[in-house]
Amino acid sequence: MGSRGTIAEIIDAANAEALRRILTSDPVLSDVQPAGEVLEGFDDRTILHAGPPITWDRMCEPMKGAALAAAVYEGWAENLDEAKSLISSGGVTFRPNHDFNAVGPMTGITTPHLPVLVVENAAFGNRAFCTVNEGMGNVMRFGGNDREVVDRLKWIAGRLGPALGAAIRHNGGIALKPLIARGLTMGDEMHMRNAACTGLLLREIAGPLADTCGDKDLLATILRFISGNDMFFLNIGMAMAKSIIASAHGIPGSTIVTTMARNGADFGIRVSATGDAWFTAPAAPVEGLYFSGFSEKDANPDIGDSCIMETVGLGGFAMAASPAVVGFVGAGSLDDAVNYSLSMTEITAGPNPGWALQTMNMMGVPTGIDIRNVVETGLAPVINTAIVHHRSGKGQIGAGLSRAPLACFEDAVVAFAETMGVS
Amino acid sequence: MGSRGTIAEIIDAANAEALRRILTSDPVLSDVQPAGEVLEGFDDRTILHAGPPITWDRMCEPMKGAALAAAVYEGWAENLDEAKSLISSGGVTFRPNHDFNAVGPMTGITTPHLPVLVVENAAFGNRAFCTVNEGMGNVMRFGGNDREVVDRLKWIAGRLGPALGAAIRHNGGIALKPLIARGLTMGDEMHMRNAACTGLLLREIAGPLADTCGDKDLLATILRFISGNDMFFLNIGMAMAKSIIASAHGIPGSTIVTTMARNGADFGIRVSATGDAWFTAPAAPVEGLYFSGFSEKDANPDIGDSCIMETVGLGGFAMAASPAVVGFVGAGSLDDAVNYSLSMTEITAGPNPGWALQTMNMMGVPTGIDIRNVVETGLAPVINTAIVHHRSGKGQIGAGLSRAPLACFEDAVVAFAETMGVS
Repeated sequence: MGSRGTIAEIIDAANAEALRRILTSDPVLSDVQPAGEVLEGFDDRTILHAGPPITWDRMCEPMKGAALAAAVYEGWAENLDEAKSLISSGGVTFRPNHDFNAVGPMTGITTPHLPVLVVENAAFGNRAFCTVNEGMGNVMRFGGNDREVVDRLKWIAGRLGPALGAAIRHNGGIALKPLIARGLTMGDEMHMRNAACTGLLLREIAGPLADTCGDKDLLATILRFISGNDMFFLNIGMAMAKSIIASAHGIPGSTIVTTMARNGADFGIRVSATGDAWFTAPAAPVEGLYFSGFSEKDANPDIGDSCIMETVGLGGFAMAASPAVVGFVGAGSLDDAVNYSLSMTEITAGPNPGWALQTMNMMGVPTGIDIRNVVETGLAPVINTAIVHHRSGKGQIGAGLSRAPLACFEDAVVAFAETMGVS
Repeated sequence: MGSRGTIAEIIDAANAEALRRILTSDPVLSDVQPAGEVLEGFDDRTILHAGPPITWDRMCEPMKGAALAAAVYEGWAENLDEAKSLISSGGVTFRPNHDFNAVGPMTGITTPHLPVLVVENAAFGNRAFCTVNEGMGNVMRFGGNDREVVDRLKWIAGRLGPALGAAIRHNGGIALKPLIARGLTMGDEMHMRNAACTGLLLREIAGPLADTCGDKDLLATILRFISGNDMFFLNIGMAMAKSIIASAHGIPGSTIVTTMARNGADFGIRVSATGDAWFTAPAAPVEGLYFSGFSEKDANPDIGDSCIMETVGLGGFAMAASPAVVGFVGAGSLDDAVNYSLSMTEITAGPNPGWALQTMNMMGVPTGIDIRNVVETGLAPVINTAIVHHRSGKGQIGAGLSRAPLACFEDAVVAFAETMGVS
């Protein structure tokens, strides 16, 4: 054994460093700003989308629908027909959110004049971004694109975003690590349930909002907008997760997954040591419970950047925290929930002692997906997720569990081996 | 068997009616008003206190200390010395909160010009009252009585109470039953943990407060006051519990406990069929965990009206909802917590299906303490509670579990038998 150690030792050391960075991350919600001003190199006439790269012709209908809304919102087209012509003729560039350290739920559409939440990882200095949650129902992230959707985006960009940003700055940011720790003891797994964290956020931001928002009516509207949406925190959680896992990206020798994302057609992962290469496979259907009147035949395949939550041990990995979600996603009893969290310990680098699961004797959430373990065990990461209708404008039709396709991890292991000189 | 049935059948029918009223109660937070204006027959120069009736000479030091603060706050005395002279010479009347359908945590001191939360039981039309939570630390309910304490009471009465009342009225009240149902899935048992319910309340009231509070600085201060105190909801929960259990009071033949309360010297209960008679026994010490530097020798005996929560199946009875509290009160593991809730099923009339425990397969909280069951099993109601220093002004020194003294229940059974013509 030389000074460099065996390959296994090198990988173990690299993964220990990746886990160390994840566990010592200090994500702070620090601002809300227009995407075009904070996403480096985000040119005009560009639309960012969820998941790995995809071209217009291969996009699912909800993503196309949301992209049309975005083009109208940005003023690149007068209406949806014009938007379609513009985009079909190549007048808009599409790129993944992840190219810009950004994430977005479901279709994940981000454009230059939409505001993004800014989360700074104070331990490592990197930042990550996510659009502001629009609420439930007829919204762009589920493919909605009518006047109501576009008008709401204008309100978010013109009123909510600036006010929220001012309050957050006035407060000197909001530390997210302790907030998540508390939310885990209050039934949230931060992917399909954010009720507790939304309340905890409101408790942090209500005072600062009242300090900084001079418009009384706007203040009341904003307080109601946040209060009335159990999922308001999701987008903050996603930017947080991205800011954490990005700190573990690019470590030579590390087999830790630093991105999982779906564009509605493909599921893609990226791995610490293999840089910006995507390993993709067809997005799987979601097993779940459907809202009344809908079934599997109405469902779009798995979509969204929101499974960034699972890369840091939340969502399906923290299912044991959230008995309420177990029923919502059709996963059975509390025992089943505990089993999901327990099984994820087999494919992760270690527990996160700062984020403990009360129903599992304060075990830390299983953290840092190791592609080697996934391939060796055949155990795919479990993801809590919403289900969107495969046609645009129909919105959410259910919630359930999906599994990351094993083929992504198999391809990643091959590519990783090449980086280590083993092929 | 005559048409009146056996005594056991009469009791069972009466208790079924008591349980029906508890389960169909519809408590709504409807207002905040000065106690003197809404507590019927609440005369000036009267101080209400926690627990069964007690005279000045028998009061514990924290209750005496709080009463002195109250006399200064009301302007009946210039300072604490004058207040002591006034009270010692009989210049103030003391009566229990429960004489006025009111409750108060710890010392429970209520005076005419302090605001009270008003909870209306919309199903039965009765109302119940509780003062507004002052926050943690140096506060009147823990016996605090210096300038800081009195000034805070003035702010609560002059600024917070009116603003909160206006917002609640503007919102048309706040339904509490669904709020509690949700809080139980978020780790609150509503006696020693109210973190989730405080957040849920803020989500209901923040918008209405912004609508109705014209003073921007006051609004910001109020939002921070509520947000910054995990126990803010406790007093609302207590008024709610009182409004629920009062609907089951006064049913001939019913052996259901309709009051449990401690004044720091005596523990007292009242029972549905025996009207306003108190059955008392010496207040027990609290088994618990002490803050650094304190021990059992510093502790006052069990005190406060807050065990009204346990009469409706919350607090110690809902311990399974709250793994976080289990550690805080020194009750051991989650399994121990579940066992506390399970054991309380032996002494209660039935589960409350509207308030379900996730860690117990959605079993409803055990509801309606039956004095017969307590005496037969020897199993005393378990109460989650704070521990106050036995000297005035020292405040909270820990938290723990207490048990209602069995003697109260034995005496109540004897008195109850007399109402049934059995002696």
